[in-house]
Amino acid sequence: MVAKPAAGCLFCQIASRAVDSLIVFEDDHTLAFLDHRPLFPGHCLLIPKHHYETLSDLPAKLIEPLFSAAQRLARAVEIGMHADGSFVAINNRVSQSVMHLHVHIVPRKKKDGLRGFFWPRQHYASQEEAIAAQTAVTEALATSPAP
Amino acid sequence: MVAKPAAGCLFCQIASRAVDSLIVFEDDHTLAFLDHRPLFPGHCLLIPKHHYETLSDLPAKLIEPLFSAAQRLARAVEIGMHADGSFVAINNRVSQSVMHLHVHIVPRKKKDGLRGFFWPRQHYASQEEAIAAQTAVTEALATSPAP
Repeated sequence: MVAKPAAGCLFCQIASRAVDSLIVFEDDHTLAFLDHRPLFPGHCLLIPKHHYETLSDLPAKLIEPLFSAAQRLARAVEIGMHADGSFVAINNRVSQSVMHLHVHIVPRKKKDGLRGFFWPRQHYASQEEAIAAQTAVTEALATSPAP
Repeated sequence: MVAKPAAGCLFCQIASRAVDSLIVFEDDHTLAFLDHRPLFPGHCLLIPKHHYETLSDLPAKLIEPLFSAAQRLARAVEIGMHADGSFVAINNRVSQSVMHLHVHIVPRKKKDGLRGFFWPRQHYASQEEAIAAQTAVTEALATSPAP
C-alpha cells in the first residue's frame, strides 16, 4: 500500500497544508478537520496522515493511533457541541467520496432527524438465509490473514 | 466503568451464551454475531465481551483489539458477501438500541439503496459558524484527558 501523498488526493493535500481546512486535532499519525458539508455542525473527519484508501488498507500499527484519536474526538464533539451522543462511521469504497480513509465523527442530538441510517432494516427471510450469511463471513475470516 | 455482565443487557447475555446468536468471530476480548435485523444480509455486530456502554467508555487497552477485529470483519463481509465495500459505524447513545458498545459492520453494494446516511448534509451558514464549531471541539479536546 502506498504510504505517501497520493497525486490529486484532497485529504493528502489537507494533511500537507496545500489545501486549507479547519483543523481540530493533530498528532504524529492522524489529523482531524471539520467536514465542510456537515451532517450537523461540529462534524469532523479524522484521517491517517499517510494515504490509505480504506480501513482494510490501514497497517496494523496504525489501528490504535487512529481509533484512540476517534475515541477522543467522539468525546470532544459531544462535549464541545453540547450533544447527547455521537455517530462514528467509515464508508469503505461505497459512499466514500474521497478515496483516503476517513472516520466521520458526528455530534448527535435526540430527535435530530438523522433517521436514514436504520431505515431499510429487514429480517432474514429464513433461518437458512441467516446461517448462509454466517457461513460466508466465517469462511472469509478463516481465509484472511490475522494481523 | 463496570466491566462485568450488566443485568438485563442483551449483548452481555449473547457474550455469555445465555442468549443464542449466529456468531461469526470470537477472540479473547471481542465477539461478533449477525444482527438479526440487518441493513443487508451479512450485517455483523462486533462487541467487547465486557460491558461498556459507549466508545467513550472503552478502556484504552481495548482500542486495538476491538478495531483490529473490526478491520478483519470489514474485509470478511466484503469478501464473504461478494460486496463492493463496507460500512463500519458506531452509534453512541443516540440511535443506540442496546446500551452495550457495538460496531456495525455492514456489506455494501453499489446502488444498494442506503442513501439515508448522507441525505441531510448542509453547509455552514458562515465561516464564523464553522470557526465557532472548530473552537468548541478544539477546546473540548484540550480539557479531555489523553489516553
